[in-house]
Amino acid sequence: MNTVRAIISRALGDARPEAAVRKALLIDPPHPAGHLYLLAIGKAAWSMTKAAQDVVGDRLKKGIVITKYGHSEGEIPHCEIYEAGHPVPDENTLTSTTSALHMTDQMSADDHLIFLISGGGSSLFENSDLSLAELKSINKQLLGSGADISEINTIRKRLSNVKGGQFALRCAPTHITSIILSDVLGDRLESIASGPAYPVSETTGEAINIVEKYHLKLSHQARALLYKDMPQILDNVTSHIVGSVSGLMKSAAQVAEHHGFETVLLTDTADCEARELGRLLGAVARTHAGSDKKKAFLIGGETVVTLKGSGSGGRNQEIALAAAPYIEGLDNVVIFSFSSDGTDGPTDAAGGLVDGESLQQLRAKGFEPADVLSENNSYPALQAIDGLIMTGPTGTNVNDLSVILIVPR
Amino acid sequence: MNTVRAIISRALGDARPEAAVRKALLIDPPHPAGHLYLLAIGKAAWSMTKAAQDVVGDRLKKGIVITKYGHSEGEIPHCEIYEAGHPVPDENTLTSTTSALHMTDQMSADDHLIFLISGGGSSLFENSDLSLAELKSINKQLLGSGADISEINTIRKRLSNVKGGQFALRCAPTHITSIILSDVLGDRLESIASGPAYPVSETTGEAINIVEKYHLKLSHQARALLYKDMPQILDNVTSHIVGSVSGLMKSAAQVAEHHGFETVLLTDTADCEARELGRLLGAVARTHAGSDKKKAFLIGGETVVTLKGSGSGGRNQEIALAAAPYIEGLDNVVIFSFSSDGTDGPTDAAGGLVDGESLQQLRAKGFEPADVLSENNSYPALQAIDGLIMTGPTGTNVNDLSVILIVPR
Repeated sequence: MNTVRAIISRALGDARPEAAVRKALLIDPPHPAGHLYLLAIGKAAWSMTKAAQDVVGDRLKKGIVITKYGHSEGEIPHCEIYEAGHPVPDENTLTSTTSALHMTDQMSADDHLIFLISGGGSSLFENSDLSLAELKSINKQLLGSGADISEINTIRKRLSNVKGGQFALRCAPTHITSIILSDVLGDRLESIASGPAYPVSETTGEAINIVEKYHLKLSHQARALLYKDMPQILDNVTSHIVGSVSGLMKSAAQVAEHHGFETVLLTDTADCEARELGRLLGAVARTHAGSDKKKAFLIGGETVVTLKGSGSGGRNQEIALAAAPYIEGLDNVVIFSFSSDGTDGPTDAAGGLVDGESLQQLRAKGFEPADVLSENNSYPALQAIDGLIMTGPTGTNVNDLSVILIVPR
Repeated sequence: MNTVRAIISRALGDARPEAAVRKALLIDPPHPAGHLYLLAIGKAAWSMTKAAQDVVGDRLKKGIVITKYGHSEGEIPHCEIYEAGHPVPDENTLTSTTSALHMTDQMSADDHLIFLISGGGSSLFENSDLSLAELKSINKQLLGSGADISEINTIRKRLSNVKGGQFALRCAPTHITSIILSDVLGDRLESIASGPAYPVSETTGEAINIVEKYHLKLSHQARALLYKDMPQILDNVTSHIVGSVSGLMKSAAQVAEHHGFETVLLTDTADCEARELGRLLGAVARTHAGSDKKKAFLIGGETVVTLKGSGSGGRNQEIALAAAPYIEGLDNVVIFSFSSDGTDGPTDAAGGLVDGESLQQLRAKGFEPADVLSENNSYPALQAIDGLIMTGPTGTNVNDLSVILIVPR
């Protein structure tokens, strides 16, 4: 368990964005003839802003920070800090974004905007011709449909006035330095936070296909927005990517190796159904349980959950729960999975951990994993056996990490 | 592609049961005071019988072989050879089984039965109080429900008069030497061919839970059978397991190593949803595509397909098809997956193979992988891009093997 704790704390520590933001601003320092502004959106917005403000100091004319509830860690000089809804946008999303647009609409060609983007930005930064009720309904449909993040964002962009490069176009000709903490597999800039400062490559045809594929219900007004022209070139933006799930995996692997484990990094782009990854990790663990060496298997990515039930849980919790039956009775195996932002799905847990006793403990508490999964109710089940990983908000957001640890008997 | 061909042919060659059956009969030779009989059921029944007959020769009084259509390779001395339905039992299943029971019902305490069991035996050996129509309906429900093989067999046993140890009990006190070619993950003897010569451990309560979990439709008569007493002890059976998916993997790994690949054997008990394994294999391949060493990842097991569409295909074909989008454009990666019996699902292909050009080729032929998968229609899609693996019946049946091959650019 010391190794588990060390992996989680070191990987999360290394994934914090402060050092990386500082470095990006030192390499590409903004020195506008006019004023310097800052806008930060996403679950890591606060800590990214803190780091940026440390570099630019009082040269900052004004900053606006929009992060998830509970993710602000206090005042930052020259900045207004807002908290809003995630994973579904709410009233505060709209009013915070209006404040941000009010600030950026005042910028002149001589001014400069530092734009700090992290995961969750899609839900926290939004301005649309549609009602909040409809946006929420479409978002909920998307998140429960089994669509992947790139498909989800293709739809979100067209329903929005700021996503898909539209925010940057609105700021032009003011120059933008965009610093991005990546939570999108393969680091596609157009997908992170739905790419408010990045041109779109998806076509109207692709958007319509996604709507049909997942049987999304859209009003006539929403459907009409799928057809609008989107920015395909932006010449006022410089982008820097800092941090990603690969870094998270490497940090975790270093800790495991330091603790004497032989490590196998399988992939940093896993995006299959969460419980099926859990079943496979369980099978891998059982196969290697007889190993005479300490072994760690690491998988990074962001799995999906196709919602069917109405329980409480998240993708990492489903991974752990689905793995539990496979390692039943093994006394030398641990499987855990967590989200680097500290909140797995809509819960206050980062993820889950199971070992060879978990299945029996679950049954003793009245939880049968197959039933729990069909209800998408992993949180109370893992809570009952002390199998939740609780980190609190971490100030970063670079996807998820799943780990199998095997020690020789 | 030479490596692919070599892996498939060597692994399948090594998995053929002849040598193993011969060895088992030499270690534990049957020399009854009375007569020697033989019964072989399953997809490998013919080649197992051929090997056994080579050992016992004319000491064999009579043998009966029941295998899948197209799986007989000709006459064997002293044996009657029948072919019947698989994966769903048919009229020939019932008449062949009646002939077998007619033979074994004549055995005395001094006689001895060699009982050769391989995968597919569940469907090929059946005698039941229920009508064939109802047995078929329940089997189809089970195979399309997403239930795992152990759950499927729990139900099959109770609806049958021969499965779950009932056949061996009927033969008592005649002694049985049972030689089993394993197609069940983890080699649970009670599950292979629904364990006709092995006592049951599942309870009536478990059977009822499975019926409820998968919403199976049973008649009152079928439901009543769930409650019957099943053999819990059998003292007239000696069992030998020969061959399993681990052997298949080891043979494949040896070939890959011989071709200069570093091998990673992930698990021999993968049983998750086929397409989700495919997505993960695709992600693993993409992550490692930049490797400066030749790498092979091997996964053995038997995945499941939750049927939603009415197309043609199988689990290995779904694995390959689901992996294709992940390796798009990579010119140094191949992913393939095949069933060791040469028939994947109800098709005449053993499995499928994809590379970095497959996605583009599929689209050029009008196949979109996500749509094809939602229709469970992988066979025509892979056929159109020359992506089917065709081996014909192999004479063995030890689950499936999935392989990723990566060569440095």
